[in-house]
Amino acid sequence: MSHRTFADLTEGAVVDCGTRTVTREEILAFGREHDPLAIHTDPEAAAASPFGGLIASGIHTFALTQPPVVERLYGDSDIIASRGIDDLRFPAPVRPGDTLHVTVEIEDKRNSSSDPGRGHLTTHRRATVEDDLVLSLRNRTVWRR
Amino acid sequence: MSHRTFADLTEGAVVDCGTRTVTREEILAFGREHDPLAIHTDPEAAAASPFGGLIASGIHTFALTQPPVVERLYGDSDIIASRGIDDLRFPAPVRPGDTLHVTVEIEDKRNSSSDPGRGHLTTHRRATVEDDLVLSLRNRTVWRR
Repeated sequence: MSHRTFADLTEGAVVDCGTRTVTREEILAFGREHDPLAIHTDPEAAAASPFGGLIASGIHTFALTQPPVVERLYGDSDIIASRGIDDLRFPAPVRPGDTLHVTVEIEDKRNSSSDPGRGHLTTHRRATVEDDLVLSLRNRTVWRR
Repeated sequence: MSHRTFADLTEGAVVDCGTRTVTREEILAFGREHDPLAIHTDPEAAAASPFGGLIASGIHTFALTQPPVVERLYGDSDIIASRGIDDLRFPAPVRPGDTLHVTVEIEDKRNSSSDPGRGHLTTHRRATVEDDLVLSLRNRTVWRR
């Protein structure tokens, strides 16, 4: 992938960031370290819950989508920082063995009104497992231009 | 800590969830696995950046605040699920050795209008390092009642 500049990014474009598969062991390990609720750490309790089995922590689901986005969009680019995440939703659970397909849509692109050397993007990240949306968020980022 | 029911939670109350310290090794390990940008994974590149050194991934910062909240609020409680995260902000970076102090304010509490067995909370989570706010988010959760 070539270096991404602010000028390279077009409002309305959708960047396909590829896929990432999560294992049962990864769900359990992330849950034990970062989100120790039974639904993420205890297969028996999870089986008895309304979800019917282990599901990934929402924070883990968010984390699973990040390497694909770094590899395809942010890693070699003129991004400076995120100004914040909005509308983070987990409409369906992620389960052991699921493969997440990650896309990023450029929803809004504008030059900074205060700094001519910077630009602002609003991106809409989505992750799906087969046809189910499992994550949706908006990320407001600042770029050099 | 005793079991938390929906009735136990009072609008305006602030739950002190205690602290969590992050090491340089944890920042590097999380970055390599979940957010492989140089600012989280490459000490030399990070030192040359505007941040002047390694900083934790925003997703890692979010993850660091979760065990304290699970331990003090969600772990043994009648929470069912999160409906979504809003207004996730990282106003200052988290650096190696920082100790995050985590609080959760009950901003809004109401019974479900559609299901008398459920209640909705909007909580405002904040994490500070000394006097600097490093994370702020709102979590809309559903509870049994």
